[in-house]
Amino acid sequence: MREIEADELEALAIGAGVLGTGGGNHPHLELMCAQEAYARGKRVRMLDPAELDDDARVAVLAFMGAPLVTKERLPEPVSACRAVRLMEAHVGRRFDAVMSVEIGGENAFLPLLVGMELDLPVVDADVMGRAFPEVQMTSFAIRGLPMAPFAIADIRDNALIIAHAENAGWTERLGRRAVVELGSIAGTCGAPRTGAEVKAHAILGSTSRAIRLGRAVERARRAHADPVAAILAAESGALLLRGKVEDVSRRMAEGFVRGQARLGGTGTDAGRTLLIDFQNEFSAAREDGAVLASVPDLITILDAVTGEAIGAEVIRYGQRVAVIALPADPIMTSPAGLAAVGPRAFGFDFDYTPFARRAGAGGEARP
Amino acid sequence: MREIEADELEALAIGAGVLGTGGGNHPHLELMCAQEAYARGKRVRMLDPAELDDDARVAVLAFMGAPLVTKERLPEPVSACRAVRLMEAHVGRRFDAVMSVEIGGENAFLPLLVGMELDLPVVDADVMGRAFPEVQMTSFAIRGLPMAPFAIADIRDNALIIAHAENAGWTERLGRRAVVELGSIAGTCGAPRTGAEVKAHAILGSTSRAIRLGRAVERARRAHADPVAAILAAESGALLLRGKVEDVSRRMAEGFVRGQARLGGTGTDAGRTLLIDFQNEFSAAREDGAVLASVPDLITILDAVTGEAIGAEVIRYGQRVAVIALPADPIMTSPAGLAAVGPRAFGFDFDYTPFARRAGAGGEARP
Repeated sequence: MREIEADELEALAIGAGVLGTGGGNHPHLELMCAQEAYARGKRVRMLDPAELDDDARVAVLAFMGAPLVTKERLPEPVSACRAVRLMEAHVGRRFDAVMSVEIGGENAFLPLLVGMELDLPVVDADVMGRAFPEVQMTSFAIRGLPMAPFAIADIRDNALIIAHAENAGWTERLGRRAVVELGSIAGTCGAPRTGAEVKAHAILGSTSRAIRLGRAVERARRAHADPVAAILAAESGALLLRGKVEDVSRRMAEGFVRGQARLGGTGTDAGRTLLIDFQNEFSAAREDGAVLASVPDLITILDAVTGEAIGAEVIRYGQRVAVIALPADPIMTSPAGLAAVGPRAFGFDFDYTPFARRAGAGGEARP
Repeated sequence: MREIEADELEALAIGAGVLGTGGGNHPHLELMCAQEAYARGKRVRMLDPAELDDDARVAVLAFMGAPLVTKERLPEPVSACRAVRLMEAHVGRRFDAVMSVEIGGENAFLPLLVGMELDLPVVDADVMGRAFPEVQMTSFAIRGLPMAPFAIADIRDNALIIAHAENAGWTERLGRRAVVELGSIAGTCGAPRTGAEVKAHAILGSTSRAIRLGRAVERARRAHADPVAAILAAESGALLLRGKVEDVSRRMAEGFVRGQARLGGTGTDAGRTLLIDFQNEFSAAREDGAVLASVPDLITILDAVTGEAIGAEVIRYGQRVAVIALPADPIMTSPAGLAAVGPRAFGFDFDYTPFARRAGAGGEARP
């Protein structure tokens, strides 16, 4: 157990943005909430998963909804705190710690805010290793752990709990319907996990990883070095293209933001064209019909100068960017993982192939 | 406490059909379920509300969904039984009895089926005194009792509980969304009511009333007398028109069946035209722009010969019918009642006026 330092919060925000792969929203506002809590004297206690008792109970937290809604409804830990308390009442046992469903985007910060509010430590782990659009796309679900019970609360006095669900898909369907009715954003608390389950089936060290990634970007900025290269080095990633956004088609559908961006190469990549598909997150990068990278590997579009991640909901014509790929967690690339979060789960008609490091494109070789 | 006799079940079905006011589905299939349970030796124990301990806990049950769905998915008490058990677990206390949310239509039978399954008595009461389309249109809600918690279960393994709701409207919104996702039909168990609450705020004697009404129709049929006149006499109702269905416009919208039927008078009513609006139930009867009857009073369309009630989802061109009005319970015509279930709550631009008995139209004067 250690306290997260005040200056690590900004690094976490940068890292969570990169790991958000275009979705899950950049946690600007959550960062401000956390900094405000620190100014009030609150601190986040971060727990190494190895420190968890096998019998401890961990609350898995997420904002569920459409990222765009958070542009007008400010983030708050209150709804998720109510979901936590509702779940405790439902199962008749208090939680010992909280953790995030996804380290990518704003959900990286939710357990920090809730942990400070409820005085609970935050486990250094998540269950996506990135951001994904649906609640069943987790390492817990891939390993067969039930998703229900699942608690949902809003900022009014509305709260419900999915007590039983036929399967993870039904939890997603019922939860999504409720969240849409509540205004397309709600705080959720998933099925309580034991310490043993977290240690065996979560993606460990995620928060530390995001902080480390953010630190690398900060160091590069201070040294006037290339933050894109720093990210690739820190994460064993590959550069797919340096270029310019040429076109974006984007629509809101079924509670998601879906679409495609076309990017044209510049500099040594001049003449190349990349097509990037997205469903909240970037899901595939293709060039001349060939797949360069796809889910579950991470595809991230960075501002070419600052290394700041650019979200699928705000990417626009003319931006100078670098497109990179980072490796997915092995749980996600296992057969069961690919069934849940591979290209076909996103509607693509091709199988997963790990992204390749292009010769001379920068970044380290994949381990 | 008394047992409901086997031959009272059919009378209850006839009476519940009449009190269904075109909605809530005629309980043909539920009648067969109950008769099958009786053939297996099960019996319904009916409890006079006066026999309830003040501290008893009563489960208020309903099928929630679109009536048309029950034409392809057969009724079963299993989903409602699961909702009852989920509510017991949620509040940490067993129920002592069950009752129906509405005596009109198939929901009149649900507590009988569940009561036989769970070995619980059925309270002789409901909270609508008829059928209404939305869950908050109850005497409990009108008297200000909270609707949440509210449990919903389907025939698979899906079950959820609305633990808290801002108000009764939110319970309806969240519940309706979940039910639509579950296939537009689910068993529900409302907030547990104490015996004292039931005695003070329910509509008492509803099941007996429906059986009595059905008995009157059966007697008239056996005597080759007019069952329509028998219903009017039993319920202090008024005949609005005898005639023929000339036109029906009907659409499914927002989980409801909505529309309008045009009826032309025959015999002594020749030359008259009645327009009947419906949202699951018949909600207003108008002639030349004048309102003859409206919610919360009961408007029922009966087969002119058999006295059998005709549902809004099956009424069609050419049927020979009698349109009648029956008085609503005083709770429903109180100011708070009219705010919840009066004409304006159904989108009409006029206020409630009790229906009038037309001279020479048959039936007794209103008390």
